[in-house]
Amino acid sequence: MPWQHPNTALYTDHYELTMLQAALHAGTADRRSVFEAFARKLPDGRRYGIVAGTGRLLEALPHFRFEEAQLEFLGATGVVDDRTLAWLADFRFTGSIHGYAEGEAYFPGSPILQVEASFGEACILETLILSILNHDSAIASAASRMSRAARGRPCIEMGSRRTHEESAVAAARAAVIAGFDSSSNLEAGRRYGVKTVGTAAHSFTLLHDSEVAAFEAQTASLGLGTSLLVDTYDVEQGVRNAVAVAGNKLGGVRLDSGDLVTQAQWVRELLDDLGNTSTRIMVTSDLDEYAIAALASAPVDAYGVGTSLVTGSGAPTAGLVYKLVSREGTDGNFVSVAKAAKNKASLGGRKYALRRLDSRGRATAEVVGVGAQPADDGNDRELLTTFVSGGTIQESWTGPAAVVRARQRHDASLAELPPSAHRLQRGEPVIPTEFEEETR
Amino acid sequence: MPWQHPNTALYTDHYELTMLQAALHAGTADRRSVFEAFARKLPDGRRYGIVAGTGRLLEALPHFRFEEAQLEFLGATGVVDDRTLAWLADFRFTGSIHGYAEGEAYFPGSPILQVEASFGEACILETLILSILNHDSAIASAASRMSRAARGRPCIEMGSRRTHEESAVAAARAAVIAGFDSSSNLEAGRRYGVKTVGTAAHSFTLLHDSEVAAFEAQTASLGLGTSLLVDTYDVEQGVRNAVAVAGNKLGGVRLDSGDLVTQAQWVRELLDDLGNTSTRIMVTSDLDEYAIAALASAPVDAYGVGTSLVTGSGAPTAGLVYKLVSREGTDGNFVSVAKAAKNKASLGGRKYALRRLDSRGRATAEVVGVGAQPADDGNDRELLTTFVSGGTIQESWTGPAAVVRARQRHDASLAELPPSAHRLQRGEPVIPTEFEEETR
Repeated sequence: MPWQHPNTALYTDHYELTMLQAALHAGTADRRSVFEAFARKLPDGRRYGIVAGTGRLLEALPHFRFEEAQLEFLGATGVVDDRTLAWLADFRFTGSIHGYAEGEAYFPGSPILQVEASFGEACILETLILSILNHDSAIASAASRMSRAARGRPCIEMGSRRTHEESAVAAARAAVIAGFDSSSNLEAGRRYGVKTVGTAAHSFTLLHDSEVAAFEAQTASLGLGTSLLVDTYDVEQGVRNAVAVAGNKLGGVRLDSGDLVTQAQWVRELLDDLGNTSTRIMVTSDLDEYAIAALASAPVDAYGVGTSLVTGSGAPTAGLVYKLVSREGTDGNFVSVAKAAKNKASLGGRKYALRRLDSRGRATAEVVGVGAQPADDGNDRELLTTFVSGGTIQESWTGPAAVVRARQRHDASLAELPPSAHRLQRGEPVIPTEFEEETR
Repeated sequence: MPWQHPNTALYTDHYELTMLQAALHAGTADRRSVFEAFARKLPDGRRYGIVAGTGRLLEALPHFRFEEAQLEFLGATGVVDDRTLAWLADFRFTGSIHGYAEGEAYFPGSPILQVEASFGEACILETLILSILNHDSAIASAASRMSRAARGRPCIEMGSRRTHEESAVAAARAAVIAGFDSSSNLEAGRRYGVKTVGTAAHSFTLLHDSEVAAFEAQTASLGLGTSLLVDTYDVEQGVRNAVAVAGNKLGGVRLDSGDLVTQAQWVRELLDDLGNTSTRIMVTSDLDEYAIAALASAPVDAYGVGTSLVTGSGAPTAGLVYKLVSREGTDGNFVSVAKAAKNKASLGGRKYALRRLDSRGRATAEVVGVGAQPADDGNDRELLTTFVSGGTIQESWTGPAAVVRARQRHDASLAELPPSAHRLQRGEPVIPTEFEEETR
């Protein structure tokens, strides 16, 4: 379905434009530069992270244009001078962008995105790039843990109401990339082809004169395959009412409160006793990956996950940074650069990145280095791919098709990791990042 | 500056539309209903919350329209039937919305927003309302603690890169409502008149052949009043270079790493020794309200706050819920309703809300009740105001003017609270919520 992407030029920090102005004035804005986005560490004892947002970034990039409305604001408020305004009016991204495929696992130091362009062009994209990658990767990284904890049972994203209305759309997209089955978010369905699902809330039961009347209204309109919410009043009576109304064709019941483990057990027994052996049980009360894991032995058929998913389950941002790692010197040659402050050291220079695999195809290390890439020993997988080349966006990484592709990448990437990747308790990254010297 | 608001109709959970369909089929969609948005509790031991997002909601409401693109998606995917599509095509909100003024303090059970409309009209707004209020109130609640901890020193919002690109705009707006001075986010400047600020990043220093060259480039273009980032290499040399380049007219230096308390001390002494007594010190390294409080005795002139602000400082969502509390019965009279599940009890019926003040104007309780409001004893402040009346939006609660108004409400509301509201450690809400019986 067509979607009119908004202009993205002012999703930008003020200082990017003042840096541009100063660099134009100093004659340094045209220096060829390489910026890299990476995480110094994984949040919160996580074993791996999942890259997400790359497709959204590529969709946003053509709309990063300084049009009349943007220029008028910048001029009227004096953010930058006329010369800079003229440069911005002409701006089109002409550089190249490489990085990890969306859905790929990442580790500390993984060069998730590399932007190669003039300093001016690369500098002003900083906030857009980081906002999208930090949000979407945080959600995907949490979603991946949840979908693995569910061990094949479907997870449904339903957290839209607990996050910003646009974040909600991106969160639904990121969740599906990282293993979720579907989402409640309709806009995610429209933009990205995400499958949307939903049935009814407590308010629907309360609207009607009795629970039976509400169930009758729902099944009459949505069919017997619908899921009925049975915990508005008394759960046992709710299940009995649901079966009385819908018979053994009832699609499902939803539990949204209480001790879900024991409740799912006896609700399953009750349903079976009533002859509803194929009626599914869906649970939806404040689930996170730990609660999902705790429900593994309970007869649950689907998990609805809200707050915890859209807030990254304790890590609402991926903490990615965007750093200048190399730039052209006065002699025209590239110079590796790195900030020297001791507590925030960065490795200078443009990186290559490989996932080292053993002979059985199991990942053993993330190899990140500067300079010439080592010869492939047959078991390495190259991680960097091309998204933008000389300003031309590879459209295959955008739109609904990119979501399907990213999901495949996610599943394949996780299949490669050691089984301990799926441990939920805090720990070290499941494979080490090995930084190779430039002079190998 | 004009801003083209996007269509908001599909910022909606699937089940709202299927409930609408079922209610249309059952003849209950037209029942007059009252929904309320409220928090069952404050996050994380907070003493108070701050309402934010109301203005954004009122701006979004006229764009909640099911136009061709939305209807085509809903029809093609079969989310709802043709009758429901026809109802949606004609949808205009014709109800009324009351609630707490934006910027107001709130407590558990405060009826922050009340929507009075047919069930159908009120039901389909659930996600839009909650997404906006939950995000913006979470940010404002965190921002308020930070701005109070800063004790009058300016706080600058600079977290755009650590949250979704649209959340970033809303976060800047919410931060300014709750006491922040300005933001780095340019789009927030354009849409809401938020003051934007910014200078330079480490990459700007690294782009140049030396720190001195970078400082010369920046001051030549942005003037001596700019702030120079002095910690790319060695902080002491950075300060000396900054003063050598800019002299004693230098506006400020920014510290972005290290032990900020001791660093600010000796940087202040060094600046003073060099004659730069009016050069300001700004600090920006992973600050939250606790770090800000710890810097109270340090010679810091401004705080730049990023990640912690935009992620709600540990509470990224306000946890507001939207519940049907009253609806028309078959006899045309209103019936109070409440979900009976014991662990999630809600008080049925439409609420009034007062802030009880003592004779000195100090808040002593949040009084929330159902039915007739008690006679004012002269010290109560009514908290509910009218935002939408019979479908007509009160425009004075929207746009840049609403941000200014909300900031005033925030400051006045906090001035009323007991001083212990400003304690940062975990505790109970600073005033109790008293629920009054309906039969008083």
